[in-house]
Amino acid sequence: MARWEPNARLRLVQAAIDLFGEQGYDSTTVAQIAERAGLTKTTFFRHFPDKREVLFAGQEEHGRLLAEGAAAAPGTATPLETVAAALDALAASFTPEQRAFGPRLMQVIGSHCELRERAAFKSLNLTTTLATALHDRGVPDPAASLAAHLGAQAFSTAFARWITPANDHTLPDLTHQSLNELREATAALT
Amino acid sequence: MARWEPNARLRLVQAAIDLFGEQGYDSTTVAQIAERAGLTKTTFFRHFPDKREVLFAGQEEHGRLLAEGAAAAPGTATPLETVAAALDALAASFTPEQRAFGPRLMQVIGSHCELRERAAFKSLNLTTTLATALHDRGVPDPAASLAAHLGAQAFSTAFARWITPANDHTLPDLTHQSLNELREATAALT
Repeated sequence: MARWEPNARLRLVQAAIDLFGEQGYDSTTVAQIAERAGLTKTTFFRHFPDKREVLFAGQEEHGRLLAEGAAAAPGTATPLETVAAALDALAASFTPEQRAFGPRLMQVIGSHCELRERAAFKSLNLTTTLATALHDRGVPDPAASLAAHLGAQAFSTAFARWITPANDHTLPDLTHQSLNELREATAALT
Repeated sequence: MARWEPNARLRLVQAAIDLFGEQGYDSTTVAQIAERAGLTKTTFFRHFPDKREVLFAGQEEHGRLLAEGAAAAPGTATPLETVAAALDALAASFTPEQRAFGPRLMQVIGSHCELRERAAFKSLNLTTTLATALHDRGVPDPAASLAAHLGAQAFSTAFARWITPANDHTLPDLTHQSLNELREATAALT
């Protein structure tokens, strides 16, 4: 990353979300996003393949954090304890900026079928990453994929609660809370 | 549907899957699909908005079957029994043709990121339909969304087993079997 473009990635994400909100996702071009961020189109394309991917910027990093968090859990951890450790690693990476633009991010994604599809795919990819991390620890399927799904669901619920204006809990706390709720609901189901 | 185009929908699906397999998804045009099916482009567009949607032809019908199956379950049914009833209604609708082109369908979808995204979204939509049907019966979240997820997962596993050449079980039987496996794995998890 060139030294005269500090926080280029974050600036591009913020510019994109601002423009999508102001003038709509379809009407916004990569050139406009780069200009709003005070950067060039070339810089944009060093960070993202297209304007859609700006909204899913964290996917690779999130997958890595989940995998590392799961791998670092104690050898004695149950599948759900391993999932909790993975979510802790992920939740700890979220910043106040991400909380601030979370509601607008969700709104843009929710208003476009193409973006909802992409979001479903991101969620599936993270679930698969988590399931693979559990397989690597010897957890068989379908237990691994179920535990991974509970983890993804818990994180999604926690994130939605975290970005509400009235919330005053941390994302890690909300993640623990929603995973506990899901664990209890699961136990009641069977 | 015009009377001189019997089975137009199924013929278009089969022609599309044949062509995608022979010459690739990207190289296949709507005109070619219509021609192979012995139909016009106009007829194609009466059934599908584009070539991608041919691969996800059943989504609306599947959602309707799941919702009706869940609504028809006895009032005393537990959430998972309701899910089983919904899956029974869905599984009963699948035909030998769908089994025959299932492996090629899965192969085309698996080989394109755009199609995998669309498939993830279809699965999410069916899960949401099932969760809504459970809400309508008074099942709260997260129990409803969890039960719906187990149902979607069970059906996906059952379908994959059904289309393997060596399989000699019916889709409803395989669906019951995979839902039971998931129920046991879920109980063991908590």
